[in-house]
Amino acid sequence: MAIAVVLLSGGLDSATTLAIARDRGYECYVLSVDYGQRNRSELIAAVEVAQSAGVCGHQVINVDLSVFGGSALTDRSIDVPTEGIKPGIPITYVPARNTIMLSLALSWAEVLESNDIFIGVNAVDYSGYPDCRAEYVVAFEKMANLAIKTTNSGNKLNIHAPLINMSKAEIIQKGVNLRVDYSVTVSCYQASESGLACGVCDSCRLRRAGFEAANVSDPTRYK
Amino acid sequence: MAIAVVLLSGGLDSATTLAIARDRGYECYVLSVDYGQRNRSELIAAVEVAQSAGVCGHQVINVDLSVFGGSALTDRSIDVPTEGIKPGIPITYVPARNTIMLSLALSWAEVLESNDIFIGVNAVDYSGYPDCRAEYVVAFEKMANLAIKTTNSGNKLNIHAPLINMSKAEIIQKGVNLRVDYSVTVSCYQASESGLACGVCDSCRLRRAGFEAANVSDPTRYK
Repeated sequence: MAIAVVLLSGGLDSATTLAIARDRGYECYVLSVDYGQRNRSELIAAVEVAQSAGVCGHQVINVDLSVFGGSALTDRSIDVPTEGIKPGIPITYVPARNTIMLSLALSWAEVLESNDIFIGVNAVDYSGYPDCRAEYVVAFEKMANLAIKTTNSGNKLNIHAPLINMSKAEIIQKGVNLRVDYSVTVSCYQASESGLACGVCDSCRLRRAGFEAANVSDPTRYK
Repeated sequence: MAIAVVLLSGGLDSATTLAIARDRGYECYVLSVDYGQRNRSELIAAVEVAQSAGVCGHQVINVDLSVFGGSALTDRSIDVPTEGIKPGIPITYVPARNTIMLSLALSWAEVLESNDIFIGVNAVDYSGYPDCRAEYVVAFEKMANLAIKTTNSGNKLNIHAPLINMSKAEIIQKGVNLRVDYSVTVSCYQASESGLACGVCDSCRLRRAGFEAANVSDPTRYK
């Protein structure tokens, strides 16, 4: 059975991605990144999601991006916007976050001799983040194949982004079919310590609209 | 004056790279990565090098790659080879290390609105590391330009690898011309806490041979 490294934030998208990787027959090693995010309950949710999915291993790695600042998700002096989704790249964007996360997953994949990394990026409801586009994922994969020794022998490393062209509703429908328990996932940018969602940040708005469009009852615990 | 982010390990190559970046007129923000490396004196050397070079800022960011293992530099149960340089990729290779370091530099560069990242990789005396080749650096640069928001407005982010085609002797000659104080740099893979070099690991051998070939007196403090 092939091994995959799956990035898991504890949110809806990555939980669905993990279910897809398992459904495709991969033995999953799950990686969560504690990058100093404001929403600490996300990491607790990641542990719960990994446990309920039955993974082969779960690592939480620390890399404190708050030393760089520049994002409402890592700098507590910047408020999370709650006025509704606006055009352009929002202040919740964390510079180079997906590149850092994929790089860490790449390191673990090489040690595990895995050729497959899964990430739950999504270009449809992506809030304008540049590192959620298909062309970015393709470029990362190309770079990764030059970066590591295990691909020197002719293997190809694959970055799987199975959600990239799906709407939030389609993601939820897929996850429901794969029996993902969304009640344990936390998407809110500023959830309480116990995982209660604010309901008004961009991530909450996208998530709530997704459940409505999917015609699935929303299990999110709101404040 | 343009701003650059410079990766600085505390070794000879990155100290020279910092001097080159300053010589080219950049205001330098220096980033060191504590990835759980065996050689802790390297990070102390990085602080000294940054201070003596007169940089605008220095961050040491922690990301504990020892949780993944797979390298003699992060896993203390694997011995550092001391028998001489052999063909192939050595056990001192840290999976995806340069990709992780460049990703962190990319994050800071975006926050600082810098379009220039310097890294001291070298393809000549590179000990067989795949992520020290020119084609890798080009692929990272291409990916980086798709990853971040500051390049969306038409700016181009550049990854500078000024040492990539230089021999160790040429690097040392360049550094001497730029008045780099190599006595504070530490290259040894298993230096003592006070920075004394073993003299027999691959990195010590490359460094010693470089000083000899450059006809420069070797300031390294050996055990």
